[in-house]
Amino acid sequence: MNKEQYIADMKQRVFNANLALPKEDLIKLTWGNVSEVNRELGVIVIKPSGVSYDTMRVEDMVVTDLQGAPIKENSLNPSSDIVTHAVLYQNFEGVNAIVHTHSTNAVKWAQARRDIPAYGTTHADTFYGPVPCTRQLTQTEIERAYELETGNVIVETFRDRNIDPLACPAVIVYGHGPFVWGKNTEVAVQNSVVLDEVATMALGTEELKTNIDPIDKYLLDKHYYRKHGENAYYGQS
Amino acid sequence: MNKEQYIADMKQRVFNANLALPKEDLIKLTWGNVSEVNRELGVIVIKPSGVSYDTMRVEDMVVTDLQGAPIKENSLNPSSDIVTHAVLYQNFEGVNAIVHTHSTNAVKWAQARRDIPAYGTTHADTFYGPVPCTRQLTQTEIERAYELETGNVIVETFRDRNIDPLACPAVIVYGHGPFVWGKNTEVAVQNSVVLDEVATMALGTEELKTNIDPIDKYLLDKHYYRKHGENAYYGQS
Amino acid sequence: MNKEQYIADMKQRVFNANLALPKEDLIKLTWGNVSEVNRELGVIVIKPSGVSYDTMRVEDMVVTDLQGAPIKENSLNPSSDIVTHAVLYQNFEGVNAIVHTHSTNAVKWAQARRDIPAYGTTHADTFYGPVPCTRQLTQTEIERAYELETGNVIVETFRDRNIDPLACPAVIVYGHGPFVWGKNTEVAVQNSVVLDEVATMALGTEELKTNIDPIDKYLLDKHYYRKHGENAYYGQS
Amino acid sequence: MNKEQYIADMKQRVFNANLALPKEDLIKLTWGNVSEVNRELGVIVIKPSGVSYDTMRVEDMVVTDLQGAPIKENSLNPSSDIVTHAVLYQNFEGVNAIVHTHSTNAVKWAQARRDIPAYGTTHADTFYGPVPCTRQLTQTEIERAYELETGNVIVETFRDRNIDPLACPAVIVYGHGPFVWGKNTEVAVQNSVVLDEVATMALGTEELKTNIDPIDKYLLDKHYYRKHGENAYYGQS
Repeated sequence: MNKEQYIADMKQRVFNANLALPKEDLIKLTWGNVSEVNRELGVIVIKPSGVSYDTMRVEDMVVTDLQGAPIKENSLNPSSDIVTHAVLYQNFEGVNAIVHTHSTNAVKWAQARRDIPAYGTTHADTFYGPVPCTRQLTQTEIERAYELETGNVIVETFRDRNIDPLACPAVIVYGHGPFVWGKNTEVAVQNSVVLDEVATMALGTEELKTNIDPIDKYLLDKHYYRKHGENAYYGQS
Repeated sequence: MNKEQYIADMKQRVFNANLALPKEDLIKLTWGNVSEVNRELGVIVIKPSGVSYDTMRVEDMVVTDLQGAPIKENSLNPSSDIVTHAVLYQNFEGVNAIVHTHSTNAVKWAQARRDIPAYGTTHADTFYGPVPCTRQLTQTEIERAYELETGNVIVETFRDRNIDPLACPAVIVYGHGPFVWGKNTEVAVQNSVVLDEVATMALGTEELKTNIDPIDKYLLDKHYYRKHGENAYYGQS
Repeated sequence: MNKEQYIADMKQRVFNANLALPKEDLIKLTWGNVSEVNRELGVIVIKPSGVSYDTMRVEDMVVTDLQGAPIKENSLNPSSDIVTHAVLYQNFEGVNAIVHTHSTNAVKWAQARRDIPAYGTTHADTFYGPVPCTRQLTQTEIERAYELETGNVIVETFRDRNIDPLACPAVIVYGHGPFVWGKNTEVAVQNSVVLDEVATMALGTEELKTNIDPIDKYLLDKHYYRKHGENAYYGQS
Repeated sequence: MNKEQYIADMKQRVFNANLALPKEDLIKLTWGNVSEVNRELGVIVIKPSGVSYDTMRVEDMVVTDLQGAPIKENSLNPSSDIVTHAVLYQNFEGVNAIVHTHSTNAVKWAQARRDIPAYGTTHADTFYGPVPCTRQLTQTEIERAYELETGNVIVETFRDRNIDPLACPAVIVYGHGPFVWGKNTEVAVQNSVVLDEVATMALGTEELKTNIDPIDKYLLDKHYYRKHGENAYYGQS
């Protein structure tokens, strides 16, 4: 497949994934954006900024380089979060697609500046441990290069806390909302669905009981590795 | 375009915006009303009072003068809230469309007599600071001229607290519910969607953490001015 | 119109109103029932017991006398709550249609054995004061004549607390759920929608603020009488 | 009817019941599984593991023996929870269909390690007493035979607490989620709907009032036996 055709296919996948966001009740209005990277071709494809989901077309998807700069003159503006996506692709090997939403329940945790604890197997099936919440950005970071520093603080969170981004494919940015990823756009959207669902469940769990502990490591291991890694036995292989 | 044609177009926009309210899950039954003003033509167009959304027609939209009095004899009664709309149009320059709903989550805050704090960027993208809750109307105000005084107390709230109605395009009236506005009907409906969403998120945030602070001013600034004003860089311009 | 035709029309209205319950998200499965009375003809028409909403037909609606006993042999069994409906019709003049649901949010209050307070105008537009919760039925009452005593305890609640059933067209039965009524089936269904909505709002209001007071009597009066009674000015008259 | 035809019918029922899960809002993505047993034929039919509900076909349903081992070579993998289902069928006579979901509200209770109390008649109509939450599985149990031990701990819960699985057709497994059953697939799905609904109601009830008691035994008895057993008078008989 030649490069042009490959990029056309990327646009189609990114377009489809963006349309999945309102369908899965993960966004309102024009919020949210999905991107896909191809490191060999040196391109990211992402949703244009602020375009209505009703009128958006496949060809409106914007192609940028690996720093997030649009490649073609006169293309639409990429999502204003493109540089955050770019930083993540530069640092998180194996991540090929990223979804950003303001999904209602994940945002509640982001605004409360709290990790989402692993309270059950629904969580453990997708996220190996708590979904981390970043620290607050400083005024300097925000004023200098907001979207870049948002990417940086995500990378810092995973590095400092020694979390594998492939084992925990999501973060919530303090005061803002989730960035979620996966090996492809479809998985990244699915992980976004799971994130908002476990955020809902965890909030409800805390309403029912105070001082609750996360599930034990051996149950976390069991469920995560039932679905992931070489000994996985979930699904059709 | 002549005046008659312009008013016909206003009716169509007001009609469409009203139909958007149940579709966006902002109202039940016949609750809610949308209006649009044209100050040069001296007219407001608003939904008729208590007409079912199922049977309402474009031509049922009611044309009033800038005080809220129907212009044509024998027209349907305008929404009982018309005078509140009129007061806002008289006082809030640049506001061309108003939406009133009893949207579930915004009403919770109105009934608790609390401002909706700016806990995150979802809020800051649309509302520059907390969405204010008005003081309680006095018995005299309510008995004398309820709808007029509802408008007055909104204007008073923005004036006394020195809030720019264009930077914070919504208010919640104590014990009642939200009035939301914008430069046109479409934006006013969108702002209503955002208001109910941030009301939901803020409630959940408080369930997750007590004594939480609003986001810092520099993050509020960043997000608000990313989308609004001359340095905005969100969307296609 | 002859009696037969009138009863056929009652069946159609009762059928339609029952179908509205799942559409308005007020019930699950086969829960819920709607009835209409005609005191002159001496008949009540009500949903049959435990029939799926998917297969239910207009002619399945059951005709009973004013005590709730089916008039025709071999008709389907009426809803098991028929006798409760009958007691209410016998005692609440002006009530011509009754809806019983287990709507999620109203039931929360019924199970907590609490009145739903009038925290705002959404409530006051339909219910003039708190929606009362009945006392607990005694073991004797439940074992002797459960459905009859459910009706009796509702009547007792309105009589002892001096509430006008036309001004507050709903009750929540302790540990069970709401009975809601109106001058016709359409209004009774609408009132059921409002009841569950204000139950939702009131719960959220309490989550946002402790020790909250109901709205003042003059605001309650204003909103209730804006829509009801001879000085009403809401809607088209 | 010959065995082959009977199994084809089982596949159709299991397929239909699985499709009902997303429709009833009980699952996300490919979560959840439904099975049906026929003890005389010595077969269980269950959903395949990890197959999308959009592309799943009737013939994809997997036939296993009563221990949960697939009967045909080259069939799809059965749901990874098949052995849990098998243990329940071996121990719970009269249970012919099982549904496993991660339905949002039931999971909240499972994660909080709490029984769902019988706070009202909506609960009592289906569940005779609290819906039990299992104890935590030990590390040894989880590592040795997770799905088998999940079945065992459910059986243990009903045995040790002397609960009749036909009178309380559901359990919530600590940290995981509900298993629900019935005499056939349709009833098992209905019971799953009821379980999530009463989980929602019970949480809300506790938000409205602390230290609330379950309903009295005589009200529980009345509602349960109004619908179940030889003196039932609900529905058409």
